[in-house]
Amino acid sequence: MSETVPRPTLEAVAARAGVSRATVSRVVNGGDGVREPLVERVRRAVEELGYVPNQAARSLVTRRHDAIAVVVAEPETRVFADPFFALQLRGISKELTAHDNQLVLLLTEGRDDHARVGRYLAGGHVDGALVFSLHLDDPLPGLIQRAGIPTVFGGRPGWRDGTGDDVVYVDSDNRGGARDAVRHLVGLGRSRVAHITGALDQTSAVDRLEGFRDVMGDVDARLVGEGDFTPAGGERAMRALLDRCPDIDAVFAANDLTASGALRVLREHGRRVPDDVAVIGFDDMLPIAEQTDPPLTTIRQDIEEMGRLMARLLLKGPGDATSGVVLPTTLVRRASA
Amino acid sequence: MSETVPRPTLEAVAARAGVSRATVSRVVNGGDGVREPLVERVRRAVEELGYVPNQAARSLVTRRHDAIAVVVAEPETRVFADPFFALQLRGISKELTAHDNQLVLLLTEGRDDHARVGRYLAGGHVDGALVFSLHLDDPLPGLIQRAGIPTVFGGRPGWRDGTGDDVVYVDSDNRGGARDAVRHLVGLGRSRVAHITGALDQTSAVDRLEGFRDVMGDVDARLVGEGDFTPAGGERAMRALLDRCPDIDAVFAANDLTASGALRVLREHGRRVPDDVAVIGFDDMLPIAEQTDPPLTTIRQDIEEMGRLMARLLLKGPGDATSGVVLPTTLVRRASA
Repeated sequence: MSETVPRPTLEAVAARAGVSRATVSRVVNGGDGVREPLVERVRRAVEELGYVPNQAARSLVTRRHDAIAVVVAEPETRVFADPFFALQLRGISKELTAHDNQLVLLLTEGRDDHARVGRYLAGGHVDGALVFSLHLDDPLPGLIQRAGIPTVFGGRPGWRDGTGDDVVYVDSDNRGGARDAVRHLVGLGRSRVAHITGALDQTSAVDRLEGFRDVMGDVDARLVGEGDFTPAGGERAMRALLDRCPDIDAVFAANDLTASGALRVLREHGRRVPDDVAVIGFDDMLPIAEQTDPPLTTIRQDIEEMGRLMARLLLKGPGDATSGVVLPTTLVRRASA
Repeated sequence: MSETVPRPTLEAVAARAGVSRATVSRVVNGGDGVREPLVERVRRAVEELGYVPNQAARSLVTRRHDAIAVVVAEPETRVFADPFFALQLRGISKELTAHDNQLVLLLTEGRDDHARVGRYLAGGHVDGALVFSLHLDDPLPGLIQRAGIPTVFGGRPGWRDGTGDDVVYVDSDNRGGARDAVRHLVGLGRSRVAHITGALDQTSAVDRLEGFRDVMGDVDARLVGEGDFTPAGGERAMRALLDRCPDIDAVFAANDLTASGALRVLREHGRRVPDDVAVIGFDDMLPIAEQTDPPLTTIRQDIEEMGRLMARLLLKGPGDATSGVVLPTTLVRRASA
């Protein structure tokens, strides 16, 4: 191990600079009340020895770590497989770096590891947490509340009860965006419009389903297939939908990955898109949405901006903002609908 | 913010259990010397109040955090764009989780942020660090050495001087694998064999170039094009190589991403692979290596196992292992060579 090089101590710096321990300590912690020539000598000794102050001890006093935890409530494999998370992290990383805060990404293999994440958050290692992709029965929100650190959620948490009004979150207008998607399909003259949902233990999926129902009303229940925001889930749901309702003439998929799976199955079954079945997604995830065959009409949400805004709200405090900030969505027309 | 719920204190637990602060503290820290009925009462109070011990204070005493930092010396965007990192992280995540250690991934926008990473590592937040994708002039190794925490490197660090023998690393046999690749091309009767290097400020790229030279000897310098381990770098280098040496009949690319870029350019120029130009990669990165046109002959390294082994060496100590552990590579034959 590379620990055989002893870490230089405060004492060593004091000896090298020819000053007292207390003087070194004052300089390292800001230099108040120390004469400039002494400050200079201490700084030179710090540099020559490569001294790093013991921040564990210091941060127990200042309670600042200049580090923010990011928790994605998904297994590590999913975090790297779904570009949604990379985009949100990109926004977060840019904003935290601009404020010289360290991004501390806590990865897990799955929900069983969330208690350990809660311990790390409670352990005095970070100044706050950004948490996204929560699922309904996830123990994380409770663990985070007990950790007692400022937190901003990505996506409206589904666990709000009457006391939850102090929860700060950033979300997209999932319900409004879904309404726009379905209205677009109806406007094309389609009447047998199906919906492939996302993971229904997440509020984003529930809200998009609500938006679908806002437009379609009390629709034939067989026109709703359950997906999980993955291409494989989209394939499974599309197969089942074609089985149950062969007369489908349009599909609103809960995200672009789901739509890409649905498109593959429609092609397999010889259905032309958009002639026989129009398809619309959600996200405007690039390059996927442009590379599907045909390119995907979709509802754009600014995922990177969501990440940036989450970080900004955490660092600066929510200010006058209400508990939730909801970003608008826009329809992006390509060939699939 | 979700911090309005006050975090339960040690005092609150003591009051609820009807015992002294000292008793609660002893129970929380292992229960030595406390009678069983009292232990039980304290445990119940801890549970009812949702008390989380102040681990920052506790870990200053025990110096254990059950958390390991992972530092990839690349910008955050590259970490998510190159599947090599996802695979190495998968191995690390599985191994750390199996030992109930938290994976703490420290992301950056670039090298300017490495001083901040060094501060976090020195700050008493983790028990050790796994560091990979180092570049030659990177300040990280020095910062990590000063942080004084056990470290295992992924890939042989290039900064070793005479005193560096205590550096533990896991690497693949880059030089031997490169020799196998080039021998395979020569065995096919190819004589104008070119090499597209990786980023030459990384030892993996330097070692693969050495392996190429081991077989080809003092080759025409124009047959070596500099890449950077990305598809775009492979495209650029392939274009320049075809310009300089139109008679090339084989290419050894430093990794599969580089090879995928080279294949695109060869196709553009109407060169048939493998008939006109045989191409071989390095990594056996799936699904990329199977999805190129034609599928890619390559040198397989077990990237996930490298990650697992790095974590294992860090958690258990290197034991009798020498400073470096080098994993073997194997030739995987597909259509491109």
